[in-house]
Amino acid sequence: MIYHLFNWLREGVAHRIGFYAYEDVLFRAVMAALTSLVLALLMAPRVIRWLMRAKIGDRPEFHHAALNELMRQRANTPTMGGIIILTAILAGTFLWAKLSNPFIHKAIFVILWFGGIGAVDDWLKLTGKIRQRSRDGLKPWEKLVWQFGGAVLIGVFLYSDFRNIDDALRFWLPFYKHGIPLAWWMFAIITVLYITATSNAVNLTDGMDGLASGCVGIMSIVLVVLCYIASEYMSRAHQMTWAGYLLLPHIPESGELCVFFGAITGAIFGFLWYNCHPAQVFMGDVGSLPLGAAMGYGAIVTRNELLLFVIGGVFMMELFSVVLQVGYFKYSGGKRIFRCAPIHHHFHLAGWSEPQVVVRFWLLSIAFAVIALATLKLR
Amino acid sequence: MIYHLFNWLREGVAHRIGFYAYEDVLFRAVMAALTSLVLALLMAPRVIRWLMRAKIGDRPEFHHAALNELMRQRANTPTMGGIIILTAILAGTFLWAKLSNPFIHKAIFVILWFGGIGAVDDWLKLTGKIRQRSRDGLKPWEKLVWQFGGAVLIGVFLYSDFRNIDDALRFWLPFYKHGIPLAWWMFAIITVLYITATSNAVNLTDGMDGLASGCVGIMSIVLVVLCYIASEYMSRAHQMTWAGYLLLPHIPESGELCVFFGAITGAIFGFLWYNCHPAQVFMGDVGSLPLGAAMGYGAIVTRNELLLFVIGGVFMMELFSVVLQVGYFKYSGGKRIFRCAPIHHHFHLAGWSEPQVVVRFWLLSIAFAVIALATLKLR
Repeated sequence: MIYHLFNWLREGVAHRIGFYAYEDVLFRAVMAALTSLVLALLMAPRVIRWLMRAKIGDRPEFHHAALNELMRQRANTPTMGGIIILTAILAGTFLWAKLSNPFIHKAIFVILWFGGIGAVDDWLKLTGKIRQRSRDGLKPWEKLVWQFGGAVLIGVFLYSDFRNIDDALRFWLPFYKHGIPLAWWMFAIITVLYITATSNAVNLTDGMDGLASGCVGIMSIVLVVLCYIASEYMSRAHQMTWAGYLLLPHIPESGELCVFFGAITGAIFGFLWYNCHPAQVFMGDVGSLPLGAAMGYGAIVTRNELLLFVIGGVFMMELFSVVLQVGYFKYSGGKRIFRCAPIHHHFHLAGWSEPQVVVRFWLLSIAFAVIALATLKLR
Repeated sequence: MIYHLFNWLREGVAHRIGFYAYEDVLFRAVMAALTSLVLALLMAPRVIRWLMRAKIGDRPEFHHAALNELMRQRANTPTMGGIIILTAILAGTFLWAKLSNPFIHKAIFVILWFGGIGAVDDWLKLTGKIRQRSRDGLKPWEKLVWQFGGAVLIGVFLYSDFRNIDDALRFWLPFYKHGIPLAWWMFAIITVLYITATSNAVNLTDGMDGLASGCVGIMSIVLVVLCYIASEYMSRAHQMTWAGYLLLPHIPESGELCVFFGAITGAIFGFLWYNCHPAQVFMGDVGSLPLGAAMGYGAIVTRNELLLFVIGGVFMMELFSVVLQVGYFKYSGGKRIFRCAPIHHHFHLAGWSEPQVVVRFWLLSIAFAVIALATLKLR
């Protein structure tokens, strides 16, 4: 909005305003982050009070008796705090992004679609508990079908944008200068798999005070950098792009997503203020599903599919700990690899305090982020 | 060390090794960070066990009864964990930095000198408690005299390097292209004030599990960026420096400090693994005094004196809360502004849990860091 306002002012009042900073995506990303941060900070206390009045609290039940004991304090903390995050993200993006940008359109779609699935799931879970209804949230296959549906739509939308971009419909390997061309169905499969996987990975990670929110915050800072590198110029005069300099795929216009991921960073850190131990609010599926999907979306748009395994290392650990645990349990007929999956519960049961698990997973996230950014310079 | 090894290999075996990444300070900074991180993680359990056997535990006593109650759990946690940090920093720096660089020399001097003051202070405090000696650590004026002495030496050393650098002996204001020339005594006063102040500010902040370590970690990441910008080239072919591009002072060779601050980042995050709530070890003065001095040193070398107030916003809050509290107490004859100073105790007494105070102060640090980096692009 503000971008268009300034553009319009400049056309009208000509060159009277000597303020060009708004043209730079990084400047607008920082402004979006600060806007979303302040908005989330201001909004949260009101929303938390409202959620508590509406009795939207979380009473998680685990199969593990010791874990139920460790997690008892969580009862009656309101959930669905994700609506704070989503509102702040959308406000920050609408205010500061160039709204005509195709990648911003899809980003907003990701937030709304996956936020919708999460909201329905959370709502059914809560009303199910209060009113003793028969259904306890969406069934896993229902959730998965809707996630697939959203991911397929994003794949289709992106494919139509990507057809005009040389570097986009390729799979990029590190240390190999030319990407492998992707047929439309290969691109579709990758997109759908990634977005569904990241969405569920963040959902699984969201089981301790501040765990998912802190890790998403760190990851979205990395995505701001990746989106900037994917599209912006080092020097327009010399026609030098960052992508060309670092031998990475060049995806014009994707830099506008810096504003989107900036807004996510601000919103999530604002939320973390209230979500840190002992949490005053949880994000719920309405937060974790869209945030996860947005992370996958960012990796797909900037063609960093492989790097995502490094940047999102913590989420991958969480996802694969569940896959391994469930797989091995079925294969061995009842044996377990971890004390409990997802893996953060394993460490909690091993004697780490909840803040220790959370801070240590954040530290892992930071280490993964640094390693990921370092590989960019090495190629 | 590794830099010189590769240089020597290349001269001997000529151009057989096609590996030039080691020339890049950012690559070596990341490697130093990872080295220090792993070293701190591996070393800490042994050092903690040794400290516990030697009974080097912290039993802080506050004037505030309620605070003594809140902080009771801290008794018997070993302190002087700063030696883990300092060892890891020195190892990372020795391994990866160009050891002929003048700014690296002074950086090592800062760590050793201020680490020495902290070690003596910690040691006297502990043996004083155990052996019922009359003295409880260094007296405030003794500590200050030694800090002043170290800072004066650094000022003298830096002045002799800076005399050959155009941009160095100036005071840089934002939005003003040319710095104000500094006479030698003005430069000396600024250097001494800054290094003494930052050293004490980090010392004051170090009163809660993970508070000082997390904030120093965030700040040292920013200093890696600032050192890189202060000296490195965007494109050597076009003779474009980052400093020239961003209209900041150009300080050749200061980029080598990226390796030093990278090592600090890694060491401190490795330490934070054990220092997060409930802490298994505290850093003590042997950690906080040299870390603080290093932060001030980084700001002075890169000529970012004013920006330091933003990057180190949390430390400034802590420092000025004490100055205000003490000043107002004396001026008003016994009244207080805060419930207790430094300010993190104020919020703790107001009802925030210890992890909440710590995580929220980290979030403030991140916000200050982002704002500081954003102002660089705006100039």
